[in-house]
Amino acid sequence: MRSQWIWHKNELTYCLYNKVMNRRREKNVKVLCCWQLPQVCPSVKFMRYFELAKTTEIRIRANGTVSVRVDDCPHYMYDFAGSVTLPAGRHVLLAEVYNPADLPCLFVEGEGCESGAEWISNCGNGKWIPCECGGFYDPARVPSCCTLPVRRVQPVACARAEAKNGSSGLLYDFGRELFAYPVIEGIRGSGELPVNYGESEDEALDPVHSELSDTFPVGDSPVYTANLTKAFRYIFVPQGENIPSFGSLSCNEEYYPVRTRAKFTSSDELLNKIYKTAEYTLELTSREFFLDGLKRDRWVWAGDTLQSEWMSLYSFFDCALIRNTLVALLGKDKFEQHINGIMDYSFYVIWGVWEYYRYTGDRRFVEEVYPRSLELYNFCKSRTNANGFMQKINNEWVFIDWADFSTDGELCAEQMLLYKATCAIAAMEELLGIATGAGRAREAETLREKIDKTFWTGEGYAHDTAGHPVTRYANIFAVLMGFCSQAQAKIILEKVLLNDSVLKIKTPYMKFYEMSALAELGRADKMLEIIKSYWGGMLAEGATSFWEEYDPAVKGAERYAMYGRLFGKSLCHSWGASPVYLLGRYLVGLRPEQDGYKTFVLRPFLDGKTYFEAELPAGEGSVQVTYRKGLLRVYSSAAPGRLELEGKEFFIEAGKAFELCLKD
Amino acid sequence: MRSQWIWHKNELTYCLYNKVMNRRREKNVKVLCCWQLPQVCPSVKFMRYFELAKTTEIRIRANGTVSVRVDDCPHYMYDFAGSVTLPAGRHVLLAEVYNPADLPCLFVEGEGCESGAEWISNCGNGKWIPCECGGFYDPARVPSCCTLPVRRVQPVACARAEAKNGSSGLLYDFGRELFAYPVIEGIRGSGELPVNYGESEDEALDPVHSELSDTFPVGDSPVYTANLTKAFRYIFVPQGENIPSFGSLSCNEEYYPVRTRAKFTSSDELLNKIYKTAEYTLELTSREFFLDGLKRDRWVWAGDTLQSEWMSLYSFFDCALIRNTLVALLGKDKFEQHINGIMDYSFYVIWGVWEYYRYTGDRRFVEEVYPRSLELYNFCKSRTNANGFMQKINNEWVFIDWADFSTDGELCAEQMLLYKATCAIAAMEELLGIATGAGRAREAETLREKIDKTFWTGEGYAHDTAGHPVTRYANIFAVLMGFCSQAQAKIILEKVLLNDSVLKIKTPYMKFYEMSALAELGRADKMLEIIKSYWGGMLAEGATSFWEEYDPAVKGAERYAMYGRLFGKSLCHSWGASPVYLLGRYLVGLRPEQDGYKTFVLRPFLDGKTYFEAELPAGEGSVQVTYRKGLLRVYSSAAPGRLELEGKEFFIEAGKAFELCLKD
Repeated sequence: MRSQWIWHKNELTYCLYNKVMNRRREKNVKVLCCWQLPQVCPSVKFMRYFELAKTTEIRIRANGTVSVRVDDCPHYMYDFAGSVTLPAGRHVLLAEVYNPADLPCLFVEGEGCESGAEWISNCGNGKWIPCECGGFYDPARVPSCCTLPVRRVQPVACARAEAKNGSSGLLYDFGRELFAYPVIEGIRGSGELPVNYGESEDEALDPVHSELSDTFPVGDSPVYTANLTKAFRYIFVPQGENIPSFGSLSCNEEYYPVRTRAKFTSSDELLNKIYKTAEYTLELTSREFFLDGLKRDRWVWAGDTLQSEWMSLYSFFDCALIRNTLVALLGKDKFEQHINGIMDYSFYVIWGVWEYYRYTGDRRFVEEVYPRSLELYNFCKSRTNANGFMQKINNEWVFIDWADFSTDGELCAEQMLLYKATCAIAAMEELLGIATGAGRAREAETLREKIDKTFWTGEGYAHDTAGHPVTRYANIFAVLMGFCSQAQAKIILEKVLLNDSVLKIKTPYMKFYEMSALAELGRADKMLEIIKSYWGGMLAEGATSFWEEYDPAVKGAERYAMYGRLFGKSLCHSWGASPVYLLGRYLVGLRPEQDGYKTFVLRPFLDGKTYFEAELPAGEGSVQVTYRKGLLRVYSSAAPGRLELEGKEFFIEAGKAFELCLKD
Repeated sequence: MRSQWIWHKNELTYCLYNKVMNRRREKNVKVLCCWQLPQVCPSVKFMRYFELAKTTEIRIRANGTVSVRVDDCPHYMYDFAGSVTLPAGRHVLLAEVYNPADLPCLFVEGEGCESGAEWISNCGNGKWIPCECGGFYDPARVPSCCTLPVRRVQPVACARAEAKNGSSGLLYDFGRELFAYPVIEGIRGSGELPVNYGESEDEALDPVHSELSDTFPVGDSPVYTANLTKAFRYIFVPQGENIPSFGSLSCNEEYYPVRTRAKFTSSDELLNKIYKTAEYTLELTSREFFLDGLKRDRWVWAGDTLQSEWMSLYSFFDCALIRNTLVALLGKDKFEQHINGIMDYSFYVIWGVWEYYRYTGDRRFVEEVYPRSLELYNFCKSRTNANGFMQKINNEWVFIDWADFSTDGELCAEQMLLYKATCAIAAMEELLGIATGAGRAREAETLREKIDKTFWTGEGYAHDTAGHPVTRYANIFAVLMGFCSQAQAKIILEKVLLNDSVLKIKTPYMKFYEMSALAELGRADKMLEIIKSYWGGMLAEGATSFWEEYDPAVKGAERYAMYGRLFGKSLCHSWGASPVYLLGRYLVGLRPEQDGYKTFVLRPFLDGKTYFEAELPAGEGSVQVTYRKGLLRVYSSAAPGRLELEGKEFFIEAGKAFELCLKD
């Protein structure tokens, strides 16, 4: 067996979570995360019972200090120098690793007791559990210090430019949004080299108001390599008498080495460009975890990650990334506040656990995170008001969306999320054979009836119980959660979703849900139309990745501003990538029927003009769908499924192409 | 106002707790703590609203990186270089401090916004609370890096000696147990200098089996100073060809700078020596926290610390140390195991909180730790069996004492501790005006009746429900907790405590409770007799501090052995210091009547031969008691009280000497 690094369950995830969450900068100022992070346990005990075939030298190394105890010796090994030689036979080895600054982990070589999944570990809570490993076979590379790989990227253009503050210098354009750090070569002279980053040209040329800049102390060597990855497309470097000169500026781009498992091309070139840009946006924000945005916050927000999860399930199908993000968000401390400090976000995490299971059938993960999900759920329930409803407590953050509406009191959207979380917990319990599941499912139904009775106005669900005007949020959720009747859904479509007098949605974030709801209600045509105008609008503004917020009405310098800052807006934001999901789920029309894509349903949207060729992940296999004039072809490599088309159903056998001639 | 270091509530305590708990060594091998420690939060936000009288330069320094935000500026201060100048008027300042390796803390200078108790802080859990400070006024000395002071100590003797392993060298005797590290001067030559420590001469002269040794790399300088404090009275340094020679060896003794508030001398010289040695033992084990023993474990065990707490309340009256120890033990993580992993120890912590209040009247502290105490209590309750009793789960540790008895099933002693904890929680709730208090007090009484019914045999309380022979533990607790009737107590005294056929107690730990019970039952004479024979026995063995375990029957080399190791026994163990408590509470006879010594009761034991002169702390003031032939004199500096003597009561006015002529 090959030895590999081992650590205590989930601790590598917590360690990376801490590292990633502390990389946010404004200019070069560190900005601390505004919620509590699960701390890495500095002391871990590792143990293994094993049998040696012959006398064996066992080599032990650790990230941290290590103390070793062998068999029934009543004390630790004195003067332990990295190895111990044991005779053939049964043994037990205990290794205590201490590292207050990084992940305590262990690497043991020696035939018969190699470090790997056979070891157990204990972080001091009295419970020995199987330790975790993940294919880190190089003893010289500690898992927690492994970073994402980098590749060299050259600018596509470089020109002299004048910055807004009067300085003149060189403007480098890398042609697309990057997550990278500069490499400067051929340095002559020494001193401080200021560098200004911009997601837009405007930002790069405004060193005073830009969000990110650096001052590099160069000159000791002809090459200077920065060390913290930042988000930009442009870099401006002023030139002048006191500034060292240099030969070239390129970048090390940090990339996430995962390949998409989806393909999508259509007869509509704009749609193709939107899909590619969305896919690229998701690729950029998929890193150690799903990040919200690259320029800021570079944080793991649950609202953003639930959408990233769905997008990934239609493209990269990156199960490990989804699991890691959920484990990080669930954390390990006693819940004292909502996930990310936001009420809705607690519910999104619980929902996200269940959605992950729906698409992957990964029962073991549900088993692992159910106790923590239940704790979170109980925390939420402990904060319901006398009415059994969720309601803002003190100055708690209720988000829903960046928009101008009341978040005080009993919001309908929050109650629906509570309902959805109750359903998810009930479903996990049913899956795991936990007796409370059935009662919880009834509880969810009672809650549903109560919410319906309290908020349904006859013309959609009310925003809250305080009489504020109807908003879209709860109505969108009602459709997506299967919360309301078909008759109610029809009213919602007409009176709310297609009603221009209801407060409009401006963020790509809530657009994700709005487009989904439209498509669920049979208006994929409308969804396509909006995708082309809204996301197409960003492309027309020069976007190479999709934005945090976009209002087609706002033009000029204003379009980059947010949070009272000229360039506060993130131009590469995960929640902007929803076309990846929307086109997969509602144009191609694929979704799992039985959990984990044991079977699938396909409901393609065939409009007689948007022809497409797509391949989407479906568990281990994929489903290929080709729509050409007069023909629909479906091929599923692994799972059988059903094709639903105009009220008819067709059975799709796995591994066998299905073709249907279409009128038109 | 003077600026001082500030930090987030309790975090300095957690930081020191981690540092202290990771100093345990065997030889020079690190031994990790076997329970989970509360981790220091690496990210803390500090904030203050303030008003400046004039334009002021505000200087900000932090232990860690700091980011600063001022007033309504929508971003952090770029290029912050340690200070910001603000005009007169109202302001708000936010400083985010990040330190993943040590305590994040802050020091702010500038008239009107000095760092101090006016600041609030937030560790990311969404709650702003008043920050903590503790008189650290020196900006150059970060609180978490402050260590206890040291003083130079010279050996009282040095002689040539032969060690057991055949090496010959120098044996230094420091005359008493020390917590110190060597300073070696006048070094000639360079290389490795082995040093072997011993609490006993035997241990120092057995470098192979001793518990602590070091190998110092000397020679770069003529002076070498070690850096980790260890426990010893003797040091043996071998001499030989390959070993560097040196001029002198002395020690830096780390000491805890607190003075006793008690005085005790008696007409019995042995008793005086026992008292002094006990007081010295407690002084040595009182450090950043109450430690169990100096050689090992150097850990904070709740069973040991409850006794240290009581002892301190009769000597040093060190409220801060008691509070810090309780806060560290209560921790902040979700309870997944008992305190220290031991069932009884959870109950001792809850009991300890209430005892602290009884002696100090510190309501604010109860308010602070009640939520955490309740969580711990609820954790215990969640582990009761179908019968409502505590019972070992899996391989959980049930300690009670180092002795040979069954700890499986329903032990009477554990149920009594559960009862006591229920009473303590009920009392805290009554004190804080929490409505559940009264119900909880009734619950405690119901539990008491049930325990009494289940375990009372007519000849004492049974050890368990499994029919094992009666042991002393539960019976001792019954007396100390006021659990049983006077008639039952009488039976316990005769049939259990004074019955030599009942399993004897060998640890000073359980002797603490046994002696207390004897004295409570009117047998202070017996208590005195045992103190003199048992603790006197250790003195006769050459003890300069009291031991972890002592069996008068064991002689020779065996007396230092424990845990299967020749010198495993700790010869300076906190629980050995109980005479400090026993003599104060049962010979002098002082205890609080109203909480916090608003009034006291004095029940001196006057045997007509053990005359004494004592002064004991009683809240802010003290109570002096002088017992001479024919005379008892009492003077209380602050609190009024009652003297109880032979069924009579005398009122003692504060600030006024009271004298009573005695027959005999």
